Amino acid sequence: MFFILLHVGLYIKRMNYSESRKGFASDNNSGVHPEILKEIELCNKGHAIGYGADKFTEKALGLFREKLGPETETYFVLTGTAANVLGITAVTRSWYSVITANTAHLEQDECGAPEKFTGCKVLTVDTSNGKISPGMIEKHMHGFDFEHHSQPKIISITQSTEMGTVYTVGEITELAGYAHSRGMLLHMDGARLANAAVSLNLSFREITTDAGVDLLSFGGTKNGMMAGEAVCFLRKGLSRDFKYIRKQGMHLASKMRYISAQYIAYFRDDLWKSLASHANRMAQVFAQKLSVISNLRITQEVQSNGVFVIIPPEVAEKLQKKYFFYPWDEAISEYRLMASWDTTEKEIDDFVSLLGKEMIDYQ
Amino acid sequence: MFFILLHVGLYIKRMNYSESRKGFASDNNSGVHPEILKEIELCNKGHAIGYGADKFTEKALGLFREKLGPETETYFVLTGTAANVLGITAVTRSWYSVITANTAHLEQDECGAPEKFTGCKVLTVDTSNGKISPGMIEKHMHGFDFEHHSQPKIISITQSTEMGTVYTVGEITELAGYAHSRGMLLHMDGARLANAAVSLNLSFREITTDAGVDLLSFGGTKNGMMAGEAVCFLRKGLSRDFKYIRKQGMHLASKMRYISAQYIAYFRDDLWKSLASHANRMAQVFAQKLSVISNLRITQEVQSNGVFVIIPPEVAEKLQKKYFFYPWDEAISEYRLMASWDTTEKEIDDFVSLLGKEMIDYQ
Amino acid sequence: MFFILLHVGLYIKRMNYSESRKGFASDNNSGVHPEILKEIELCNKGHAIGYGADKFTEKALGLFREKLGPETETYFVLTGTAANVLGITAVTRSWYSVITANTAHLEQDECGAPEKFTGCKVLTVDTSNGKISPGMIEKHMHGFDFEHHSQPKIISITQSTEMGTVYTVGEITELAGYAHSRGMLLHMDGARLANAAVSLNLSFREITTDAGVDLLSFGGTKNGMMAGEAVCFLRKGLSRDFKYIRKQGMHLASKMRYISAQYIAYFRDDLWKSLASHANRMAQVFAQKLSVISNLRITQEVQSNGVFVIIPPEVAEKLQKKYFFYPWDEAISEYRLMASWDTTEKEIDDFVSLLGKEMIDYQ
Amino acid sequence: MFFILLHVGLYIKRMNYSESRKGFASDNNSGVHPEILKEIELCNKGHAIGYGADKFTEKALGLFREKLGPETETYFVLTGTAANVLGITAVTRSWYSVITANTAHLEQDECGAPEKFTGCKVLTVDTSNGKISPGMIEKHMHGFDFEHHSQPKIISITQSTEMGTVYTVGEITELAGYAHSRGMLLHMDGARLANAAVSLNLSFREITTDAGVDLLSFGGTKNGMMAGEAVCFLRKGLSRDFKYIRKQGMHLASKMRYISAQYIAYFRDDLWKSLASHANRMAQVFAQKLSVISNLRITQEVQSNGVFVIIPPEVAEKLQKKYFFYPWDEAISEYRLMASWDTTEKEIDDFVSLLGKEMIDYQ
Repeated sequence: MFFILLHVGLYIKRMNYSESRKGFASDNNSGVHPEILKEIELCNKGHAIGYGADKFTEKALGLFREKLGPETETYFVLTGTAANVLGITAVTRSWYSVITANTAHLEQDECGAPEKFTGCKVLTVDTSNGKISPGMIEKHMHGFDFEHHSQPKIISITQSTEMGTVYTVGEITELAGYAHSRGMLLHMDGARLANAAVSLNLSFREITTDAGVDLLSFGGTKNGMMAGEAVCFLRKGLSRDFKYIRKQGMHLASKMRYISAQYIAYFRDDLWKSLASHANRMAQVFAQKLSVISNLRITQEVQSNGVFVIIPPEVAEKLQKKYFFYPWDEAISEYRLMASWDTTEKEIDDFVSLLGKEMIDYQ
Repeated sequence: MFFILLHVGLYIKRMNYSESRKGFASDNNSGVHPEILKEIELCNKGHAIGYGADKFTEKALGLFREKLGPETETYFVLTGTAANVLGITAVTRSWYSVITANTAHLEQDECGAPEKFTGCKVLTVDTSNGKISPGMIEKHMHGFDFEHHSQPKIISITQSTEMGTVYTVGEITELAGYAHSRGMLLHMDGARLANAAVSLNLSFREITTDAGVDLLSFGGTKNGMMAGEAVCFLRKGLSRDFKYIRKQGMHLASKMRYISAQYIAYFRDDLWKSLASHANRMAQVFAQKLSVISNLRITQEVQSNGVFVIIPPEVAEKLQKKYFFYPWDEAISEYRLMASWDTTEKEIDDFVSLLGKEMIDYQ
Repeated sequence: MFFILLHVGLYIKRMNYSESRKGFASDNNSGVHPEILKEIELCNKGHAIGYGADKFTEKALGLFREKLGPETETYFVLTGTAANVLGITAVTRSWYSVITANTAHLEQDECGAPEKFTGCKVLTVDTSNGKISPGMIEKHMHGFDFEHHSQPKIISITQSTEMGTVYTVGEITELAGYAHSRGMLLHMDGARLANAAVSLNLSFREITTDAGVDLLSFGGTKNGMMAGEAVCFLRKGLSRDFKYIRKQGMHLASKMRYISAQYIAYFRDDLWKSLASHANRMAQVFAQKLSVISNLRITQEVQSNGVFVIIPPEVAEKLQKKYFFYPWDEAISEYRLMASWDTTEKEIDDFVSLLGKEMIDYQ
Repeated sequence: MFFILLHVGLYIKRMNYSESRKGFASDNNSGVHPEILKEIELCNKGHAIGYGADKFTEKALGLFREKLGPETETYFVLTGTAANVLGITAVTRSWYSVITANTAHLEQDECGAPEKFTGCKVLTVDTSNGKISPGMIEKHMHGFDFEHHSQPKIISITQSTEMGTVYTVGEITELAGYAHSRGMLLHMDGARLANAAVSLNLSFREITTDAGVDLLSFGGTKNGMMAGEAVCFLRKGLSRDFKYIRKQGMHLASKMRYISAQYIAYFRDDLWKSLASHANRMAQVFAQKLSVISNLRITQEVQSNGVFVIIPPEVAEKLQKKYFFYPWDEAISEYRLMASWDTTEKEIDDFVSLLGKEMIDYQ
């Protein structure tokens, strides 16, 4: 999350939201898909060696090689922040810099975890739609070999972005080429990778390994899993020390099989795809229905499962008594509405209908 | 785990363990208790605000106040290492030192996470049974107010210890008094706190808050939970910054309700007590049956759920083809056998019977 | 230094500079003023307690209280980077952020030391003249009390700036008020503080303590000293832990008297003022003489001891065979020319005369 | 320094030491040798490129290659703590451990700087005379390749030791061989390397590079220099990243020539040797004279420039009114008396005579 909001704590207290109704605050407010929960139960038989030396984990890691390429080396961690930070730790030293969008989770929403744990400098590039390009990065391409200056080493992009937009394969390939030609690496924060794959109608591999991504944070929690993110090294040689980094990074789970089981279910029969497809479709429906109401403005192209819309604050405040959702940029009264794998058209209809009514009262 | 073992990786490869049979390697090889899994399913309805602002978490935190005292402030994290390291971060600055047993998980089994994340020095005290006392700590009590020297600030004890022993309330109280009189704090690593409470026939509160413990890592994973440890601040004023430390420490779970639900089930009808009582009883049974075999030596008092025994290496090697269990101190051929909430007397009988047979063959 | 230069290493190798001639690369290429060297010799008698408990240090610290106010607490360290980083460490925790100009030494020239040592995030504000204002900072003023976001805590300004400009007292006071009203602190990197004081014709105290600065890196090395920077805490209560931070930060000098002696000489009879006045005047002379040459453009107001000028690269290259000076922004062929306490008008004349000649040949 | 002393701050306040008289507290209380100061003045001519690209530094680095071997790569830093910590940073990752004597400066006197900056665990070995051997280290040689455990990587020894003893070449060679055979490296803290070389009557190279040392902190400050320690990488390939580590470690001096000049003088005509020889001889004289007084016990072999002696506390207290010197182990009333390059026999005579007198009064 990234909020241009003075005091988020005050904001949450100020809301009078009834928890019985599903809102549109975040896709991580949704629950766990029944198939995933069932797989957790199935693996709950007898004993399994701890810390990942079990057969469920072996199977899950094999699935990652199937989906992302045979050289993929995957390690499970427990939060998305850990996936980003620990993955980047594996390929950096503290005098490197990481270049990312000013809207990136890495920059805005990890409370300085990248700096604290890697020691690296995080350099940003201003972007309005969450996407960055070589031209925008160029300003940070200096000071190589100069010990006074942090050495640029990682370009980090989010797919799909925090603004609901999606990088094309061409855009990713261009960034990867740009990085590699400068001895740098391309990291992808894939907290919502499934939504991007579905949006582009491509496989995971096509938008990551094959497009030149070196290091991937592969998330599932926002798409129907309970917890458990994957750090995927897509090129040989990058993961050498990672087992130590994960453990020292406090993210080696003892009962690993319960993460692995979730991924087994997630990949089976492309469950991930049907869940993400649904969420993306609901966002389209949402945007379409909102567009009918006059005097609302949708601010970002709807390419995955989020809709950004400007709503008069007085109207938003009334809606927030019934629905939980976040302001994105308070200065312009922009709000973020997220669709989940379990969002129904009925829920959207109810929300839009109330919003439409309030807009009429307001005008 | 703490192994006096040259190459653990080689050791695990060398074993020819059949996964179909339950072993005695660790209590974290056991699964999740059905009541806990059921509670996870029960909370999996509709949406819940992420990051802990949900009603399940509210309920679980209230239970911790009930169990540990009304001033308790509890925060969930995802691994035991994180509970120890992040909790200690909250009450230290990087120029402090943490004093602990040479056998402590903090010292032996966290890959330097305490040093990496807190910056503090970890000072050790040699102990054969895992327990430390003021007299043993005394040697580190110098250099106060002297900027050349790390400032002693935390005494960290494990309850029950890594050696299967248990601190009495008197011993804890003495350590707490010793710490407080020097402006220091007492931290307890309670990864197996339930086993200690059961062993002493006391409540959680009696062996923590009431005994003077300031900061507690409260574990459940080794006693039938899936994952999710609690950092409990038992005195007012210690947790002020912890919300930032947890987030920056990469351990703020988005779908927090699935941890909270586990604790709700864990505390209901004292489930924790029946699970830990069973594990402790099985360790007693184990020790008793082993004691019948001649030429074995049990090296530690069996006060919780672990048994330490010296077995000739040739014999141990044969057993390890059927059972998974770890050497503890290879130099003296000492092995650790852990009982779990799901260990059966039959499993112990089978193991002991095979061991007895191999011992006869060996002699 | 901050160079928009692809490979500085290659650049230095490419130059064919004869060391026998003084250049204009940096004020730190100048030597030590004789009065300062004499004071070093004077203190070199007999023994003195190490680590700062000597009478020279006592005297020097008293002089800082005289110059900056009676509440000032001063600690010597050995480099300017250490003064910035360790000072900021004293008033931050790792989940805070530090806001500074994109041109700041802290951001560009410390190889990520602030992030590595403090763990804090460094947020930047774009500026063309090196100065920042509340309006420019405003974009970072969000996410307070929100654990996902680094907490804004420090505004850091450089006086005089890396671009040779100087903040007025009014500008500093406004920034301090802005910071304090948000629970933040104002840090000043005073590597060239003397040049700013002289430029404004004000005392050190008027442009620091009295203007609301909380924490000051007080430099002397660029103004005739050998080495030794001072971290000055200008408000009570900020320095409590600093003795540990300096030692753990590897900057507690054993033979402290040799730093203290330098400051004793520096302050005596306002030596600092005559040195900085000279350097500033030389920069004025430099700018004036350059302005006579047609087709050169001075890009920054000359308010302290640096001149920034656009010179055709072919011309600059010829000059660099005789004089050592740095390109600042290669993209626009901008060069930095620094005057020192020992720069002579003759040296400037010779340089300008050669430049003028080369410009004629070039056109 | 390492003091078994409850409150050093109180101790220093309690002393009523007159600064006009030279004491025996530390060799770093002595001043700078005139030849070294003269060289500093000599280099103070005109300009020199900053940060080490000057001809004095080039010359000094060449001298290190002469003294330590042609593969030596040397970098100057500003304190002994920095030399140890930054050097070790170059050859470690945060999940490594460093094994050292419990008496080592690294363990006792650096306020946790090694842990804070490298992230590594520091493991200790108990020793009474400051020296360690493979047999003592053996207990830490486990857990290789096991991600739960910090990986043993560095053995760090001090030469001469904090206890005034000296490793023989055979002892160093044995430790180096032990380290190398386990994929580990040998670091030597040479804060008093000159005293050891003189004691063994060997060259610097014979007791470092040729004996198998990989990484050396080469100190001069305790032997007549003003400040400036050298990090010497004695094997190819170890220093690759060090220029960044030094800068990020806040120890890249701008006016480097003033450190380099000191080393030029230090090596010229073996100045280091005559200074260290004198100090060592004075320690011998000191010990001999003390041995005449009955009821005093010298606790360590006097092999370099320190004498450790048990003096009744009542007597020591009286002496401390006139002389500054430190208790080493308060529990046994042990005191440390350090000789310097400028200690005179007369000073020792006066001290011993007063001590003898007080001992008679005491008995």
